[in-house]
Amino acid sequence: MKKVKIYSPATIANLVCGFDILGMALNHPQDEMELILSDEPGIRIKHTDGYNLPAAVEKNVAGAALLAFLDEYEEKIGFDLTINKIIKPGSGLGSSAASSAGAVVAANHLLNNFFSREDLVRFAMNGEKLASGVKHADNIAPCIYGGVTLIRSIFPLDLVSLTAPPLYVTIIHPQIEVKTSDARQILRKEVQLRDAVKQWGNIAGLVTGLLKSDYDLISRSLEDVIVEPIRSILIPGFDQVKKQSKEAGALGGGISGSGPSVFMLSKEETISNNIEQLMKDIYNKIGMEYHTHVTTINYEGVKIIG
Amino acid sequence: MKKVKIYSPATIANLVCGFDILGMALNHPQDEMELILSDEPGIRIKHTDGYNLPAAVEKNVAGAALLAFLDEYEEKIGFDLTINKIIKPGSGLGSSAASSAGAVVAANHLLNNFFSREDLVRFAMNGEKLASGVKHADNIAPCIYGGVTLIRSIFPLDLVSLTAPPLYVTIIHPQIEVKTSDARQILRKEVQLRDAVKQWGNIAGLVTGLLKSDYDLISRSLEDVIVEPIRSILIPGFDQVKKQSKEAGALGGGISGSGPSVFMLSKEETISNNIEQLMKDIYNKIGMEYHTHVTTINYEGVKIIG
Repeated sequence: MKKVKIYSPATIANLVCGFDILGMALNHPQDEMELILSDEPGIRIKHTDGYNLPAAVEKNVAGAALLAFLDEYEEKIGFDLTINKIIKPGSGLGSSAASSAGAVVAANHLLNNFFSREDLVRFAMNGEKLASGVKHADNIAPCIYGGVTLIRSIFPLDLVSLTAPPLYVTIIHPQIEVKTSDARQILRKEVQLRDAVKQWGNIAGLVTGLLKSDYDLISRSLEDVIVEPIRSILIPGFDQVKKQSKEAGALGGGISGSGPSVFMLSKEETISNNIEQLMKDIYNKIGMEYHTHVTTINYEGVKIIG
Repeated sequence: MKKVKIYSPATIANLVCGFDILGMALNHPQDEMELILSDEPGIRIKHTDGYNLPAAVEKNVAGAALLAFLDEYEEKIGFDLTINKIIKPGSGLGSSAASSAGAVVAANHLLNNFFSREDLVRFAMNGEKLASGVKHADNIAPCIYGGVTLIRSIFPLDLVSLTAPPLYVTIIHPQIEVKTSDARQILRKEVQLRDAVKQWGNIAGLVTGLLKSDYDLISRSLEDVIVEPIRSILIPGFDQVKKQSKEAGALGGGISGSGPSVFMLSKEETISNNIEQLMKDIYNKIGMEYHTHVTTINYEGVKIIG
């Protein structure tokens, strides 16, 4: 009986000006999953966490990803999957991507890496489609590749791993619900060309800053003039968090995925800890429940641990 | 009597997906200019070329740039400028930028580099404003810095020099007039968010490809879904040139500046020469006059030669 245990990391999609094209993997939080290769065809899923996610294969994001995987695998096999979800669903931290990506990386490991990593991204996007209605890769790709990933194009799929200097990430997850579909619906379908030019200046600057380890350039480029001004109205306290975090030394930050989590990047750990405290103070004053995380970039993606 | 002679290079602005933010300097063609520092205040301009450009300081782009320069210089001095323009005005190859940038680099050299290069870009943009009504830096910056330059932001000015691997550039300049103001006016003020996302995926890919010397990624990213589809209708033969150039091995290309010149990038010299020939064939068939150039990236910008 072949089995494998993995950790699958949280991810930040829509990295500020990188709406729909840039994602980053995090060292914390991470889901734990165990996958057993079985002679008995079919997929069986069990959750050991308390999130009450659907165990029916077609309704489970990891199930949808594994179905796509099996669909292209030549032999009849089966899987028994156990998920201990640590990344809270609906946090905007790539919880569904962690399940989908973790499942297919584990499956591929058990089959001696039959598929390429790009194939795995393709399979896992079926989980994203189930979760949000849209195939997108900006959580899946960094979850599998680690680090910061550019999705240059989704059809055809074109993924590029970017190097990035060490960064501390402070996250606050206010306990409100922002549905990905709602967050997408409030976006305008047309944008000013003037704003689009600003945005691609910033994305070019951010990518250059990451590749050259130029923290100042990263900081100057962490500006989103298109999506954040609209989506941030769904997140109480957003403006305050951003303003005070930058005053405290953050390089910049924004909404994680489609929210409600908000993240801030820093060059130094002490700054990221100070930011965590000021985030707590703001939400305590607002009187809203929250979780916070202080973490770093995860450079390896889904990790096989035995 | 202090004097200096310089070469000032042609440039390609709006580098495919990099509308308004990416420019590249070329080794050919280049303007020749001579500047004499004079005790007699004021600026006197003489053209030795046959282009009949205005010699009145306020109406001459180099004059406008030098006026801005003198405006911030503390002592009363004067300049005698002689311009031998080689870069044809109205070609879309940064002819006005070469004059403006060349003049201020020369002036700064004569004054022991009193100003920073960023100051010089600021001064030279006054020439661009005179020429096109808008202060833009995507010809000026590469002309002064050399290589490929990112204008992350214009207000405030934020310039980033990008490394780039060797590239051959084939250019055809059809002898028609495309006014920058007209080329700007036909652009829609709003663009689809969907297209903007494609564009910033491509710009991120292009910048990454340049910095990593990844020719395949450069090639995949050389796509403009926003400006080219509109502006290319002003340029007879554009679609044919692009299609046949790519079939002949071009990495990609597009409209230089706001046209009418069209450029194609190649990894190898033989390919760039073949592209020159096919461009000629296309325009011979159309029955339109043209000039062609085969050149490479200029990595040093305005050059002091004595």
